[in-house]
Amino acid sequence: MPSHHAEILVEVTRGGMVESLHRGHIAVVDFNGKRIASAGNPDYYTFARSAAKLLQFVPLLESGGIERFDLTEEEIALCCASHNGEPQHVEAALGLLHKLGLGEGDLDCGKQDPYYKPAAERLSACGCSPSQLHNNCSGKHAGMLALARLLDAPTESYIAREHPVQRRMLSAVADLCGVEADSITLGTDGCGVPVFAVPVSALAYAYAGIGRPDRLAPERAEACRRITQAIRRHPFYVAGTDRFDTRLVEVTRGRIIGKMGAEGIFAASIPEEALGLALKIEDGAERASYPAAAEALRQLGLLSSSETQQLQSFLTPPVLNRRGDRVGELRPVFQLTRS
Amino acid sequence: MPSHHAEILVEVTRGGMVESLHRGHIAVVDFNGKRIASAGNPDYYTFARSAAKLLQFVPLLESGGIERFDLTEEEIALCCASHNGEPQHVEAALGLLHKLGLGEGDLDCGKQDPYYKPAAERLSACGCSPSQLHNNCSGKHAGMLALARLLDAPTESYIAREHPVQRRMLSAVADLCGVEADSITLGTDGCGVPVFAVPVSALAYAYAGIGRPDRLAPERAEACRRITQAIRRHPFYVAGTDRFDTRLVEVTRGRIIGKMGAEGIFAASIPEEALGLALKIEDGAERASYPAAAEALRQLGLLSSSETQQLQSFLTPPVLNRRGDRVGELRPVFQLTRS
Repeated sequence: MPSHHAEILVEVTRGGMVESLHRGHIAVVDFNGKRIASAGNPDYYTFARSAAKLLQFVPLLESGGIERFDLTEEEIALCCASHNGEPQHVEAALGLLHKLGLGEGDLDCGKQDPYYKPAAERLSACGCSPSQLHNNCSGKHAGMLALARLLDAPTESYIAREHPVQRRMLSAVADLCGVEADSITLGTDGCGVPVFAVPVSALAYAYAGIGRPDRLAPERAEACRRITQAIRRHPFYVAGTDRFDTRLVEVTRGRIIGKMGAEGIFAASIPEEALGLALKIEDGAERASYPAAAEALRQLGLLSSSETQQLQSFLTPPVLNRRGDRVGELRPVFQLTRS
Repeated sequence: MPSHHAEILVEVTRGGMVESLHRGHIAVVDFNGKRIASAGNPDYYTFARSAAKLLQFVPLLESGGIERFDLTEEEIALCCASHNGEPQHVEAALGLLHKLGLGEGDLDCGKQDPYYKPAAERLSACGCSPSQLHNNCSGKHAGMLALARLLDAPTESYIAREHPVQRRMLSAVADLCGVEADSITLGTDGCGVPVFAVPVSALAYAYAGIGRPDRLAPERAEACRRITQAIRRHPFYVAGTDRFDTRLVEVTRGRIIGKMGAEGIFAASIPEEALGLALKIEDGAERASYPAAAEALRQLGLLSSSETQQLQSFLTPPVLNRRGDRVGELRPVFQLTRS
């Protein structure tokens, strides 16, 4: 049973009054699994959603996927992405599929309007419909097809739980999180594939580990380094224009690598400090996850004041009315408990 | 200071596991102000948002607006609406403006894509941009302009707090809620006009009163009857296709009249029982407000099992993935406390 001791993390104001509240859970863990700080219940058990993507692509990379498919760093970042569906994302996803001798029709993620509104508007202005390539998960699905090829497994049923691709990914997620595979409850993601439930602290531990993989087997450690390096060098491909995941890497010059997930999930790796952070907004609101994440990083002393300023629009985003006037804001209100 | 004793009202499941939670506050009050039932903190103080619209139009109707402008019931319902921006809504808003000798450019609500996705898609397919008439609040703004005309007040600045229109509306909202006007904190709505903060229980009391206005002054009582009658007869105009506010009136044949508001607000009037209900989802999630409202009405014995079944898609809406498969659901989990 999940504990409900969620802490108020973010307030939403309107006209100087608090209109809504977001509660949640935060865990900050080092690469030995030692808890450094927390809010709410750091062991809250929940779906990691798209924050698991970085972990899911360790199997492809540790098994020779880079060499076999001549993967570029942009493509690696895209495999881990919840991308905006901007033209570069779409092209990179299609390019990866072509390397596999596959096309858009081999994806099984479903069609989706680009996250990035100008990209969606350009599509509809030209009378075009979004394709599966515009789905924010198209890179992940293309990467799953790559792993299917690498494993000589069928490419048709790659989203099924019993498919070798999904089994390998489950096993890697469990190992990196430091939990047993059979302790992970599976759900189905928005894009049709399995998602993994783990304690928030286990997700933080996995993120500490991918940033400081010294204690992992050499192939796995190298896979982790390739993943964080790809995102550090090409943060646009993990999210896109105006997105927190992209801006966090840019602003910190790759010192912090973060990844959002649906229903209020966020996880970050801080390799230099051998730290991982993960959080869940209890009610699933994405709008609260970035203020909470940015504030937690700030309290940990991981953002300089100049970096904090550059991330201000994510830390305390305004509430605007339809005329564009600022009528309120989101603001973090928690204090991390140090362990 | 708002109390934070919010109760868990709705769970969001995925794959049989609870993924997210929504807490909130519910008040059920009779037309004498007596509390009948509650969940969380029924006196939680929050912005009534668009649930105040029914109360805001009492001044226009009690001051002879119907006769002066030959208002139809569709137009009255539209004044109280957060509508879908469907063609009928747009035409009715424009028709009302024309009666005032005004046009779309006199609105000050800002442009907005129609809420109703097929209407938004039809607009963009023909290369059209949304106008202010498509804004879900265009009926309210047209009605505010009607009240300005009725009061011989300027139509330019009608959204300002000190404008006679806004002062009259504040006064009526306070009276109907049974609170002092200066106890109401004002904020700015998404559409630019003032919004009113009151206890959830006061909003419920106002909704009980508009449904059973016997004890109000005759002109005010008649205005309340006209408003509820307009919505009862033309529920499409208060919301639109596939909307809970519209379906609730249709399914109960007008026995229950409900109105949503942004940030997880819902209020309902049950005239036959002389009851009002209001609720606030703490985190502001609209997705949780309908399951909570439908379940509260069910527990109060106000929905038959056939009506409950017809509202099932609002009571326990599915969580779908992008392929359209059901991967979870929202489900109410609270028990109202009877007073």
